Amino acid sequence: MSQTDRLDAQMAFLSEACRLKSVTRANTLCDGSRYENSAEHSWHVALYALILGEHAPTGVSPDRVIKMLLLHDLVEIDAGDTPLYAQTDHNAIAQAEDAAATRLFGLLPADQTTALRALWDEFEAAETPDARFAKAIDRFQPPNQNLASDGTSWRDHNATLTQVETRVGQPITRGAPVLWQWILPKIRGWFARND
Amino acid sequence: MSQTDRLDAQMAFLSEACRLKSVTRANTLCDGSRYENSAEHSWHVALYALILGEHAPTGVSPDRVIKMLLLHDLVEIDAGDTPLYAQTDHNAIAQAEDAAATRLFGLLPADQTTALRALWDEFEAAETPDARFAKAIDRFQPPNQNLASDGTSWRDHNATLTQVETRVGQPITRGAPVLWQWILPKIRGWFARND
Repeated sequence: MSQTDRLDAQMAFLSEACRLKSVTRANTLCDGSRYENSAEHSWHVALYALILGEHAPTGVSPDRVIKMLLLHDLVEIDAGDTPLYAQTDHNAIAQAEDAAATRLFGLLPADQTTALRALWDEFEAAETPDARFAKAIDRFQPPNQNLASDGTSWRDHNATLTQVETRVGQPITRGAPVLWQWILPKIRGWFARND
Repeated sequence: MSQTDRLDAQMAFLSEACRLKSVTRANTLCDGSRYENSAEHSWHVALYALILGEHAPTGVSPDRVIKMLLLHDLVEIDAGDTPLYAQTDHNAIAQAEDAAATRLFGLLPADQTTALRALWDEFEAAETPDARFAKAIDRFQPPNQNLASDGTSWRDHNATLTQVETRVGQPITRGAPVLWQWILPKIRGWFARND
């Protein structure tokens, strides 16, 4: 494959990636002015990883985590965003996301298809320390946006404290326990005031 | 500074960073549906750097470039976006961005203030190979969005081919000449069709 052919394939992928800016998420911006999209969310969590790397367990590579977080939501271009507190068919979503990963990463030159697909699969499996930390960051950003915007997505989905403790508390604790210890009293305070 | 104090400072910075999602840029999304914001642009150029690292000159560290690109537009929270083809007072903008960098990076613990400010200063100076490649990527993404959306920001600002060759062609050539060779015929074609 010539350098030009590689660049053609890479640019087809990067142009398609632009569509992530049109996928709407369940939480708003911090100021509550509108709902967030998955591209700006991906930027924000990558910045979280850059800033919060010192709170990761030993052995985590923040550089790999940043790459995982830049890629992690691309499948939503085909499969859409799955709100944390919605009732969903997890098998159907997993199948749709798997097909999306095959199509999207398949736009790249073969070596990059393999490498990026492996990185996304690692993130999804959430077994390695890097993937666990990336998942923790991905789950840690939304409650911060919720606290800043007086609980928009919690209100929208009638979320309970128990649901928050399960759906974000467990993955955050698994990948970055310090971050959960930091935010838990704030979340409890919000639910106590809004019960 | 305790771990909790560090996390308080880091989270104040990351919450303030959320405002970059409300800074509107001069170019649209690829589908032309709306103008792009600086947070999703920052995500897109970081993804460009992840995918296009092989086209960087020898000695460039894509990991450092990705970090620069995640940070590069944060100053726009205070200073606003400067469209590439607008008439602007460059000294006034530089002063506003400098003050913004001082305020924003100053929210972080002192060691991170120093490290991130140095990385942003390096990007702005565009002298190191990493910074030149980061600048090249930052200038390479908008013409791709313009070509996809039939020239929105070129039309909005009555840009000429000569202006495009100067304002994006020169920095791209300086940091990643292969990328300029790839896109130049496409840009020339658009201006030939729309002259």
